[in-house]
Amino acid sequence: MPIALVLEKTRQLALRGIDLDLALGAGDVRIAMDVVGICGSDVHYYRHGRIGPFVVTEPMVLGHEGAGTVIACGDSVSHLAVGDRVCIEPGIPDFSSRPSRIGLYNLDPSLTFWATPPVHGCLTPEVVHPANLTYKLPDTVSFAEGAMIEPLAVGLQSVNKTGVVAGDVALVMGAGPIGVLVALSALSAGCSRVLIFDPAAEKLKIAAQYKGIQALYAQEGTVADQVLLATDGWGVDLVYECSGAAAAFNDIASCIRPGGTLACVGMPTAPVSIDIVALQVKEIRVVTVFRYANVYDRAIALLEQGKIDVKPLISATYPFNASVEAFERADEGRPQDVKIQIKLR
Amino acid sequence: MPIALVLEKTRQLALRGIDLDLALGAGDVRIAMDVVGICGSDVHYYRHGRIGPFVVTEPMVLGHEGAGTVIACGDSVSHLAVGDRVCIEPGIPDFSSRPSRIGLYNLDPSLTFWATPPVHGCLTPEVVHPANLTYKLPDTVSFAEGAMIEPLAVGLQSVNKTGVVAGDVALVMGAGPIGVLVALSALSAGCSRVLIFDPAAEKLKIAAQYKGIQALYAQEGTVADQVLLATDGWGVDLVYECSGAAAAFNDIASCIRPGGTLACVGMPTAPVSIDIVALQVKEIRVVTVFRYANVYDRAIALLEQGKIDVKPLISATYPFNASVEAFERADEGRPQDVKIQIKLR
Amino acid sequence: MPIALVLEKTRQLALRGIDLDLALGAGDVRIAMDVVGICGSDVHYYRHGRIGPFVVTEPMVLGHEGAGTVIACGDSVSHLAVGDRVCIEPGIPDFSSRPSRIGLYNLDPSLTFWATPPVHGCLTPEVVHPANLTYKLPDTVSFAEGAMIEPLAVGLQSVNKTGVVAGDVALVMGAGPIGVLVALSALSAGCSRVLIFDPAAEKLKIAAQYKGIQALYAQEGTVADQVLLATDGWGVDLVYECSGAAAAFNDIASCIRPGGTLACVGMPTAPVSIDIVALQVKEIRVVTVFRYANVYDRAIALLEQGKIDVKPLISATYPFNASVEAFERADEGRPQDVKIQIKLR
Amino acid sequence: MPIALVLEKTRQLALRGIDLDLALGAGDVRIAMDVVGICGSDVHYYRHGRIGPFVVTEPMVLGHEGAGTVIACGDSVSHLAVGDRVCIEPGIPDFSSRPSRIGLYNLDPSLTFWATPPVHGCLTPEVVHPANLTYKLPDTVSFAEGAMIEPLAVGLQSVNKTGVVAGDVALVMGAGPIGVLVALSALSAGCSRVLIFDPAAEKLKIAAQYKGIQALYAQEGTVADQVLLATDGWGVDLVYECSGAAAAFNDIASCIRPGGTLACVGMPTAPVSIDIVALQVKEIRVVTVFRYANVYDRAIALLEQGKIDVKPLISATYPFNASVEAFERADEGRPQDVKIQIKLR
Repeated sequence: MPIALVLEKTRQLALRGIDLDLALGAGDVRIAMDVVGICGSDVHYYRHGRIGPFVVTEPMVLGHEGAGTVIACGDSVSHLAVGDRVCIEPGIPDFSSRPSRIGLYNLDPSLTFWATPPVHGCLTPEVVHPANLTYKLPDTVSFAEGAMIEPLAVGLQSVNKTGVVAGDVALVMGAGPIGVLVALSALSAGCSRVLIFDPAAEKLKIAAQYKGIQALYAQEGTVADQVLLATDGWGVDLVYECSGAAAAFNDIASCIRPGGTLACVGMPTAPVSIDIVALQVKEIRVVTVFRYANVYDRAIALLEQGKIDVKPLISATYPFNASVEAFERADEGRPQDVKIQIKLR
Repeated sequence: MPIALVLEKTRQLALRGIDLDLALGAGDVRIAMDVVGICGSDVHYYRHGRIGPFVVTEPMVLGHEGAGTVIACGDSVSHLAVGDRVCIEPGIPDFSSRPSRIGLYNLDPSLTFWATPPVHGCLTPEVVHPANLTYKLPDTVSFAEGAMIEPLAVGLQSVNKTGVVAGDVALVMGAGPIGVLVALSALSAGCSRVLIFDPAAEKLKIAAQYKGIQALYAQEGTVADQVLLATDGWGVDLVYECSGAAAAFNDIASCIRPGGTLACVGMPTAPVSIDIVALQVKEIRVVTVFRYANVYDRAIALLEQGKIDVKPLISATYPFNASVEAFERADEGRPQDVKIQIKLR
Repeated sequence: MPIALVLEKTRQLALRGIDLDLALGAGDVRIAMDVVGICGSDVHYYRHGRIGPFVVTEPMVLGHEGAGTVIACGDSVSHLAVGDRVCIEPGIPDFSSRPSRIGLYNLDPSLTFWATPPVHGCLTPEVVHPANLTYKLPDTVSFAEGAMIEPLAVGLQSVNKTGVVAGDVALVMGAGPIGVLVALSALSAGCSRVLIFDPAAEKLKIAAQYKGIQALYAQEGTVADQVLLATDGWGVDLVYECSGAAAAFNDIASCIRPGGTLACVGMPTAPVSIDIVALQVKEIRVVTVFRYANVYDRAIALLEQGKIDVKPLISATYPFNASVEAFERADEGRPQDVKIQIKLR
Repeated sequence: MPIALVLEKTRQLALRGIDLDLALGAGDVRIAMDVVGICGSDVHYYRHGRIGPFVVTEPMVLGHEGAGTVIACGDSVSHLAVGDRVCIEPGIPDFSSRPSRIGLYNLDPSLTFWATPPVHGCLTPEVVHPANLTYKLPDTVSFAEGAMIEPLAVGLQSVNKTGVVAGDVALVMGAGPIGVLVALSALSAGCSRVLIFDPAAEKLKIAAQYKGIQALYAQEGTVADQVLLATDGWGVDLVYECSGAAAAFNDIASCIRPGGTLACVGMPTAPVSIDIVALQVKEIRVVTVFRYANVYDRAIALLEQGKIDVKPLISATYPFNASVEAFERADEGRPQDVKIQIKLR
């Protein structure tokens, strides 16, 4: 019986044996997991036992940000071989569904996703996954970087949804892991500059290490005032709201140029109040982002070419047998921690 | 001194002489107004003396939906001639401004607009306007129809902002004049069907006269239930929110298919509560609409070809000397009234 | 052994028994064919035994424009039932392929297509097809109309690829079946007017029966001169080249407005000479069209709502036992014939 | 009488006094030119006395790639001041023209352009230009870099016209100045990699100095073979044809992925032969590029932030009094020369 990091129920984790279905289908690969990152959603399940309609009613293996090595291939798999280093896209859609056919397979209602009840995650030594959602890593991209591709994919999805015109200026609200990865994605996608705001100065310092990212500190004025100062009064082309905080939507239209775009990446815990008229008088467009589709290969290419560097965002790495401690650290929410990872091999 | 319909202050109208600047610049035309429609914003100024930041502090001529005949041309005008029947785009931008250069001249902050303080409107026998915002009417389009082009332009701007793919199904919230004109615009732009909802059954009856428009009556169930029934559970491709009612945003995401679009056309009087997560899980895009740009010629072409028929929406026509009565009728807000017009000649 | 219309080799047709694989998979439906249209590609195989790389080396059943009645459903089929009247999308892609995942399943290299060697077509009483490429017809859409959906889908794909803004004016080059269906698609998608050119006046007369379509006759001047006259010198927004004739590309840029679009729908038999600079100085965009994806449901909706009427394009209907005569008629290429259909039941 | 570099007629240049209109309008600035680059079109006029319909019939001042210092401002100029270091967008449109209103001011037929007959260029110590087409340079951007913005703007226009999705791979055909600037623009706009092909290995070496640009050498195989090898058989997302060579269009479709884009940037001297069907079966889109609109501010931002480095492309700088020698050098077309500039102060 395989060992896994199991969420028994709210605030109760165990590294223990659990019965998992590891049968290898014709189109599947078996993967020895190497590095798995801890996502905010993992921590959220740990704290609350649920995210919206998804409730942990049975013990569930956590983890969905993973990279590892192929150790077996199903009969019909041709593009991967045993020994390949890979990262894994954790959502499995029906590619023939109505949303999938129009290119939006992330919106397929039948999609299953690692570590989302009732589906187990990948914090266990071996997993089985469809080969066509498993991507080979170049030699120059480490497992640790490979395990960052899942959250980076959210960043790239965000910039794909808005579109970016070379030379755009963006504002990111929220300097957590997703905020920073969105900022890096925006820079890689053509932004000349990204402004980033967060109440926590420690988080901003990490973001501001990157060339092209300019931190906006709360004590230096309102976001709108600072944005307008930084853009000669015109406003930014793009705002990526990554905090999920209701307050972020206050006066957001003042930050955006006429015809600009607001992307909702962060997920507020309740409906938020939005000044529609303020958006209308500038014909601001709002796009919303949910996971990702068709970006894993792009994320790998950008990492391989050095256009995005995620290494400074890996704050700590714990061995698999210290997985519970890793979650406790993640649960602390230290502002200087961006990403905590677990090393399985 | 010309006669005009003057809003003296809140709820005080007068048809009286007023000093107007009617100097003809080189690029201008002088127009004898023929028909002017009463817009909801005219009525709003009449009732409240202001719309948002625009406050009537001096007597102001009302009216911005106009058609008439060219009676003089400035020296540099070449595409119009005396005697031409025309309709008039009432917003005058600086075409070299930063928003204008990117094709968004409606968003130029320096734009002036008829009957928006402190600029006078067109409910007066003669006006002067830039020729390049004055459009020749085909013989087959009447002055009354020509005076409908301004609100129709809002409808076309709305469908241009969302884009429409042939065969789309749309939902319009609100069956007032803008709602119906948006519905007709959506049909002309490729929708196979438009569902329309309004609490007032009389309004729905007028809308439902048109082939392709299906009324959703409040007593027959929630909007979402009716929409899902009408779309086999998939949802509409497009929602045009034209009511400005906060309640319209409740559960709106349930009406929309994955990857669909919500257009905010109506202007709520206060911030509204929006369930961002409900939009995100379907990656719904929200576009906002403010007046129009580059659509007058398109509106004229669609009227000329019979692709849009606005004639059934003209509910009553008053002579100029009964302008005050016309406004009182408009102020009543009879549900069976769509558009009240004033005939000046 | 089922009977079918078999192309034995170039110019040799037989209505005869042939061994066909009619096994019903879990996701399939069995369909009793009712009406099948004859496509230009069917005639091309009849005349030449090949289309480009696709060579008829074994006897092949012709026909890919079909409608019929479901007579059996595979175990996993839920959205169709025995007795349903349906039309069939004849190309079967791998929905998980790389092009399919980005919404372009028509470009999947592994796609198989009816009556394209070595795959048999549907001119036979019963066929088996994936249910997820089989679409229910509304009661108001006849089988004959249902069999028109395949070529209509090319028209809708064309307008989807260009996009249409309400009020656009289009030019269609070539008034064959595809040209006329593109014209009707363009009108349904928002064009205020469609100009259509063809050297054959008889073809133009059929097209010009439709409101909104204006024929340009060769004897009345060059295409460019007539287009500029009809558009006040500005040019059309969109050109759909449906003739495949090299000559159609001469001077085509003169017909198009700055920033306009040229769609290549017709397939020239050899490379054509194109004046790139003439396109550049107007920044004309060229889109190319190959079959269709995600349009069958839209085509059905537009037929159901009466936004497109294909009935005037069905020139003659032959019974199944006169299929050879039907092909001989189609091979004649009478200018007044748009679509010849075969009735199987 | 000011001194200027005057093209008297084909192959006859003179640095001599010439009568120029230097009257300062209310919206103009007077600029002391500092650096002017020599463009291929300048050399083309020198060699041939014409470019297409534009014929040099009177002596004409050359030069349109310029940067300098504001020395006087018209009465209505507010965003610039004497002493500002600036670069100049050399095309002056009518911003209220029909193409300009839709955001395509570069396509305005009434646009005048420096050093395009009969309009003089900027190879003279002082010029007068509309302030709204004059852009302030940041302190960190030199005049030499500022004079590179004009050709860089063509590169940015190219990537704006195609759009770039982060992680795209591009192929640039032709490694002349425009080809390299397009490649740098594509990288700045989100491409993970740019492949570049040119028959001249010396040119490729200069391009390949940049991280992210991979040279394809003619002796190593066909372009298509090398591209498919470099993209695992999928093809590039984007091709930018910058050579203007007819041969570049041979087999170009083989290089491009299904649904990809071909941008025509180079201007062939005669119509080229294009295999339309090869484009169609992949639904390849072709965009064409003419000069630029709305990109100068973006170019400046990208230079300022170090996202694009044009300094390695400045091959030689001549003093103003050696302008004729500079043109003779440019006329030689040495493969290792990318850009020759002239320093006026």
